[in-house]
Amino acid sequence: MLIVGEKINTTKKSINAAVEARNLELIRKEAINQVEAGAELIDVNTGTRIKTEVADMEWLVNVLQDTIENRLCIDSPNPEAIKAGVKLAKKKPLVNSITGEPDRVKAIMPIVKEYGTSVVALTMDEFGMPKTGEDRLKVAKKIIDMIAEYNIPMNDIYFDPLIQPVSSNPEQGLEVLEGIKLIKATFTDAHIICGLSNISYGLPERKLLNRTFLPMAVYAGLDSAILDPTDKMLMSALMASCAILGQDEFCLNYIKAWRQGKLQKEKE
Amino acid sequence: MLIVGEKINTTKKSINAAVEARNLELIRKEAINQVEAGAELIDVNTGTRIKTEVADMEWLVNVLQDTIENRLCIDSPNPEAIKAGVKLAKKKPLVNSITGEPDRVKAIMPIVKEYGTSVVALTMDEFGMPKTGEDRLKVAKKIIDMIAEYNIPMNDIYFDPLIQPVSSNPEQGLEVLEGIKLIKATFTDAHIICGLSNISYGLPERKLLNRTFLPMAVYAGLDSAILDPTDKMLMSALMASCAILGQDEFCLNYIKAWRQGKLQKEKE
Repeated sequence: MLIVGEKINTTKKSINAAVEARNLELIRKEAINQVEAGAELIDVNTGTRIKTEVADMEWLVNVLQDTIENRLCIDSPNPEAIKAGVKLAKKKPLVNSITGEPDRVKAIMPIVKEYGTSVVALTMDEFGMPKTGEDRLKVAKKIIDMIAEYNIPMNDIYFDPLIQPVSSNPEQGLEVLEGIKLIKATFTDAHIICGLSNISYGLPERKLLNRTFLPMAVYAGLDSAILDPTDKMLMSALMASCAILGQDEFCLNYIKAWRQGKLQKEKE
Repeated sequence: MLIVGEKINTTKKSINAAVEARNLELIRKEAINQVEAGAELIDVNTGTRIKTEVADMEWLVNVLQDTIENRLCIDSPNPEAIKAGVKLAKKKPLVNSITGEPDRVKAIMPIVKEYGTSVVALTMDEFGMPKTGEDRLKVAKKIIDMIAEYNIPMNDIYFDPLIQPVSSNPEQGLEVLEGIKLIKATFTDAHIICGLSNISYGLPERKLLNRTFLPMAVYAGLDSAILDPTDKMLMSALMASCAILGQDEFCLNYIKAWRQGKLQKEKE
């Protein structure tokens, strides 16, 4: 299970202020905390800082690489910001993201190709968001066709089946799980990634829903996730899922996490 | 989701002592607590009290029926105790259990037939415990053949796919989930029931594993469970699972549980 730490994102007030003020310490602390909690990659999302995004991305990538050894996930709607981040990345980054929209593919894939990055592919296109599991597979297939000319290894592609809230669409939980299964069965060497929190939008106790959805998604074929690795209850659910599904040999990671006090205890 | 409250079981010291002393109050309290927490049926298991089991079962069934309106699950290795409990039951009981062993079928099915009960069918037989998902389906099919002569409605049959510990057999998590899917796909009108706690045997933080396994099992097709309904974290995972999987119209049960303070809060 590949964990991408989600916390360095300028939609968060504290991160936005730190980027604005070039506050190294706060960014470093967020990065180190996430790595110590189990993140393999650190997401860098500067998408809200439209006017200064390129410079902000460059600053963040440099600060992070001075602080941690981990790979980065360069996450932006802006191809210029993605290029700026990727150019500076010392280790193979994950670009977040392309979609099935031709303009997006044309803007991002040359960067992915030139720098040999991995890439997140959202299963949506110019016709909108997917509804069924089959829709998600259809867009995944379309993306594979669209990017064929770039010759990217299949295991550098991370499909995101786009979780949608069950509060407004009760069938979306099952449909996204079906999408995960179908995409994984069709493109066995590709990865499945997602952010979890959309599942619970509009409902109370959102984190309970997110960490209940996670075991189902891992069972369906999710092998990477963009999440808050410092959320102990969520990470406990993830480690327990891997132990249950035979993805943690002799449950050694689970037992190690328990010894280190990283598992949620009964009374916490 | 049919919830069978597991707590009235003489393997527990406090219950055994209460049965021994004919302590009405403790039994009543356990029953009421489970019903208030969401149990639809109450399991009555006197299996450890070999010498006095028939009388103990009769006493418990009478006490419970004087206390609550719910159906009972009459749970014993001893056909005489099962018969004694079923005879007294005012509402259609669930008999726990038959297996694919011919002797067990012959001892229990006449009681099921005569009193029109539902029945739990463990997917094991005289050749031992099932290993794979396919094994579980094979024994389920064998049981259906063996009990055909009794003409029991399919929706009165609750298959238990027999969860086994992942600590000793890492593949057992996936295999039991596969068993649930296969049996549900083959016998669509039958139910799937299980006790959860075997999954975590031999590992630390067992309840974390149990409540992480539950969402996967519900997704695979589990529609009833023998569990402790007073375990708030477990019940929260169950209610969140039903909301996510579209089994809770407009998430109304989930929201109601939240309003009643029954959902696990972030800091609990």
